Amino acid sequence: FRDPSFAQMSEAVVVYGGCGALGSVIVHHFKTLNYRVISIDLKANEEATSNVVLTGSETWAAQADEIKSGISAAVGSGKLAAVFNVAGGWAGGNAASPDVVGSAELMWKQSVWSSVIAANIAALHLKEGGLLVLTGAVPALGGTPEMIGYGMAKAAVHQLVKSLAAPKSGLPQHANAIAILPVTLDTPMNRKWMPTADTSTWTPLDTVADLFHKWLTGGLEVTNGSLIQLITKAGETTLIAE
Amino acid sequence: FRDPSFAQMSEAVVVYGGCGALGSVIVHHFKTLNYRVISIDLKANEEATSNVVLTGSETWAAQADEIKSGISAAVGSGKLAAVFNVAGGWAGGNAASPDVVGSAELMWKQSVWSSVIAANIAALHLKEGGLLVLTGAVPALGGTPEMIGYGMAKAAVHQLVKSLAAPKSGLPQHANAIAILPVTLDTPMNRKWMPTADTSTWTPLDTVADLFHKWLTGGLEVTNGSLIQLITKAGETTLIAE
Repeated sequence: FRDPSFAQMSEAVVVYGGCGALGSVIVHHFKTLNYRVISIDLKANEEATSNVVLTGSETWAAQADEIKSGISAAVGSGKLAAVFNVAGGWAGGNAASPDVVGSAELMWKQSVWSSVIAANIAALHLKEGGLLVLTGAVPALGGTPEMIGYGMAKAAVHQLVKSLAAPKSGLPQHANAIAILPVTLDTPMNRKWMPTADTSTWTPLDTVADLFHKWLTGGLEVTNGSLIQLITKAGETTLIAE
Repeated sequence: FRDPSFAQMSEAVVVYGGCGALGSVIVHHFKTLNYRVISIDLKANEEATSNVVLTGSETWAAQADEIKSGISAAVGSGKLAAVFNVAGGWAGGNAASPDVVGSAELMWKQSVWSSVIAANIAALHLKEGGLLVLTGAVPALGGTPEMIGYGMAKAAVHQLVKSLAAPKSGLPQHANAIAILPVTLDTPMNRKWMPTADTSTWTPLDTVADLFHKWLTGGLEVTNGSLIQLITKAGETTLIAE
């Protein structure tokens, strides 16, 4: 008798934000490559192997508990090969904006809540040598005066990656924690809102999904703690790691 | 007839966290130098000229509204010479900690809520050429694996300073936004909890208050956007700006 448990099946990855533009491309990419894919989002991704469907918790702790329960139920005693957090959003506003606090809070919830929960999930369920990828942003490497909240949240994610890559972070042995730092992703929403922009400098979503797979399987080397800028010119994407 | 309004009296500064160890020393220092000092904290600082006493709002927006009303009432149509945010705290925990979310949230509230509200107050009430000082931390310039939430919150403050120093941040013309990055401040709590530590490397609170006054009055040059490490050795504090 062999228990057909999760651990004995194909490798499993979590996609936090699995219904977003990038997330759904990643879910599709890894499903096509025969991974078990667990999507975390406010709705189910029908293509995912399983889903943790969030109820829109009002507190960070409640959202963390909801996700930890859902992931535990999905993986049991098995281990995850990777956790990808591609949840996030964008909001503008400078220090004089009447809604600077509101936009800063939204950015914090979308990027920092999800990143810390993803790190916690990785600490609990990632296999030795597994991969955690978070999502930062190139502009937040410097000041972002007209998008105060966005910059702070992404800067916090960048620093989190440095923490996770250091000894005693709580991640499993030999795990790698990195962040992708896009400039502009080639999403339907960006095409809708910036119809006249030069899309040859936008990073295609398939490119990102392919990178994630190559990092996971050794096709591209991963340096623990690196912040990897995705710089696209004339349709070609170059990686700049720091 | 001259209206004895706030604007025509001595210069005014805000101390956010005016009842803390550092905050109360700053309140005392500036009061002694005949400034009007507005303290923001959960209780009144009896030495302050006026107080905005917080009720412990559950939301960031409510706390911002409470403070904006209080500051507007205190300054009227006058202008502030400086806003000092020295609110903050410390919590540990790595990514595997059961309470990583709770400690990250506490750090965010103590450091990021206060810093964004201070920036908003500065945008609304600081005079041209005025000074905003926020509080970062030396360790958050790198990874902080055993204090995940603390590092993220302070990294967000560091990036906020870069944003505020850039054009179109919303701060008044010629205003300066900087952060102090202490290692360990010589506070009663730190003496209590680290009774055997070498306090010759701790930065005295009076030193910090004196720095704030020198930066405000031109006794020491201020470079907009700088993160200023306070490195104390053998009781002498050196500033390292980046």
